[in-house]
Amino acid sequence: MTAGIPITIALDAMGGDKAPESVVHGARLALKFFPDLQFVFYGDEARITPLVARHKLAACARIIHTESAIAMHEKPAIAIRQGRRSSMRLAIDAVARGEAQAVVSAGNTGALMATAKIVLKTLPGIFRPAITATIPAQQRSVVLLDMGANIDCTADYLVQFALMGDAYARAVLGVARPKIGLLNVGSEDMKGHDEVKEANRQLKTGNFPIDYHGFVEGHDIMEGTTDVVVTDGFTGNIALKTAEGASRLIYNAVKNAIENSFSAKLGYLLARPAIKMAMRKFDPRKHNGAILLGLNGIVVKSHGSADAKSFANAVKVAATLVQNTVNEKILDELSRSTAAPVATTAGEDVAVLESLTTISISTVR
Amino acid sequence: MTAGIPITIALDAMGGDKAPESVVHGARLALKFFPDLQFVFYGDEARITPLVARHKLAACARIIHTESAIAMHEKPAIAIRQGRRSSMRLAIDAVARGEAQAVVSAGNTGALMATAKIVLKTLPGIFRPAITATIPAQQRSVVLLDMGANIDCTADYLVQFALMGDAYARAVLGVARPKIGLLNVGSEDMKGHDEVKEANRQLKTGNFPIDYHGFVEGHDIMEGTTDVVVTDGFTGNIALKTAEGASRLIYNAVKNAIENSFSAKLGYLLARPAIKMAMRKFDPRKHNGAILLGLNGIVVKSHGSADAKSFANAVKVAATLVQNTVNEKILDELSRSTAAPVATTAGEDVAVLESLTTISISTVR
Repeated sequence: MTAGIPITIALDAMGGDKAPESVVHGARLALKFFPDLQFVFYGDEARITPLVARHKLAACARIIHTESAIAMHEKPAIAIRQGRRSSMRLAIDAVARGEAQAVVSAGNTGALMATAKIVLKTLPGIFRPAITATIPAQQRSVVLLDMGANIDCTADYLVQFALMGDAYARAVLGVARPKIGLLNVGSEDMKGHDEVKEANRQLKTGNFPIDYHGFVEGHDIMEGTTDVVVTDGFTGNIALKTAEGASRLIYNAVKNAIENSFSAKLGYLLARPAIKMAMRKFDPRKHNGAILLGLNGIVVKSHGSADAKSFANAVKVAATLVQNTVNEKILDELSRSTAAPVATTAGEDVAVLESLTTISISTVR
Repeated sequence: MTAGIPITIALDAMGGDKAPESVVHGARLALKFFPDLQFVFYGDEARITPLVARHKLAACARIIHTESAIAMHEKPAIAIRQGRRSSMRLAIDAVARGEAQAVVSAGNTGALMATAKIVLKTLPGIFRPAITATIPAQQRSVVLLDMGANIDCTADYLVQFALMGDAYARAVLGVARPKIGLLNVGSEDMKGHDEVKEANRQLKTGNFPIDYHGFVEGHDIMEGTTDVVVTDGFTGNIALKTAEGASRLIYNAVKNAIENSFSAKLGYLLARPAIKMAMRKFDPRKHNGAILLGLNGIVVKSHGSADAKSFANAVKVAATLVQNTVNEKILDELSRSTAAPVATTAGEDVAVLESLTTISISTVR
């Protein structure tokens, strides 16, 4: 995307617990970072119109009225069959037709992924899209994929995730040569199951245009040992949610301890600004927005409970990915990787999408 | 084990970074909890004798001199073949011969597990031993298994882990009817890979004598949603290490924030006792000691870097497991579970043990 050409984002204005207010307000907040964004809101015109007026978005927004919306717990297959006129589906269609460069939705994760996959298809050569997000770590932000789109992953999928993660880290984090790690139970080549061992062998010997670091372990994720951590969707989802649980546990333990002691309470009053500042880094709203990487179009999933600030971050992620041409970077990686496994047929079985999971990407609340 | 009959623990006095000092001193500290313990130290007599004297253990300790010790990074297969006269092997042999009721080692994890499996064998009917440990969580302590012994797990293994975890929680945590959860990416029956789905189906329909809660997610581990969390060794190992990393990240972020601000520093001085008290719960030394559950004998692995206090906890875990007859509880569970899958042959391939991993079970350091 050449600088200067405006980016249009299609927004599912009916997806998420606080929609459409959080979506319209979020779009407004995203303009701080990308002043030239154009929006198309898909949803109930009667509810969206006054919000667009209130947030002074008339100059950069259009509304496409839709009669229906996908329910939060609708099964993906049903959403695909019965949701052809839904706000989510029409927003995705806009990307397929080139009317928008990205779509953002805080709606039903499984439905979003299933619909996006069917409408947009995967990028040429890509086996499977992977849910990709950025989380805060000790030394840097870390890109984690897959976080739940693919429960079972072959070595070939993992190798492609490494390439896609590299492209994503360059596009979103601006790291020139990201370090890529493959999640395992130990760092030696003999450790782990067949799929990680084979992926590790390919990544080490395949002469890929990436900085492959080798195996990393669970603690390496939050230490920021590498810029990108590659894993299957089962492990990635559990690792992420476990990290959230552990973060909350420690944070609450400290907080409760302070609240239960008078001298500590006084101490807390004095220490609070510094603690708040430190915790701001982990504010889940700053990390909202996971992309379904590997699709032929940019699809960003916002957390369902996102407020306006949080939704704005998901819009920001979408715009950044468009501006930094993440998909072109992925295709370039693939074409420069002569040893890379490539898919020869598109079109996956929708059934597997039934087992999709939701992700939250929050840490300390 | 009837109360009153003394428990004898075989100690690999040469295993671990701080051995033999940490082992002998740790044994002394464990007497606070189990005053009647008897110890047999396996290792270099010339180094152990003065330590036993210094820690006044002469009345309850014997020393068996050994010429060799297993190196920390020796491959399991080599340790088995070449370590027949090592301190670790002879300590395990003592359990096999009934001269001790448990063995504790802070040595090479892979070698310990491989050797213990060959010498002691699995309990009748048990497919695979699982590394089992207790970690601190929000509402209670949580038993997590497997933490790395079995990289690939069938549904049958997972079902047995649920039964073994139940027996462990009753024996060690004293919970009358532990709630058992199976780790997955979502709570619905359709979520996850075939092995967890099938294990879930069996546990729900099989009429087992346990309180099966169903699927739990990553964040449930540290929230303490269930007393026991069952998973395969790959996921368990990564989840545990990720939790450690996240805990350290949050703790350090708060600490650094405080240290970088004067008013916060003053506040920290006031709040420190309460914070220290809260963090004590997460002191990894209090949670040291993971058992290789499912073996025909009690084998406890201490962290390799354990100090005396930490090692004492591993000894305490071993004594508790002996006193509360964990293995009898497991066999009882199995015999009362008519639907339980049981192994018909013992003797596993040693090769799989090459991929064993180390575990650390530490949280905030």
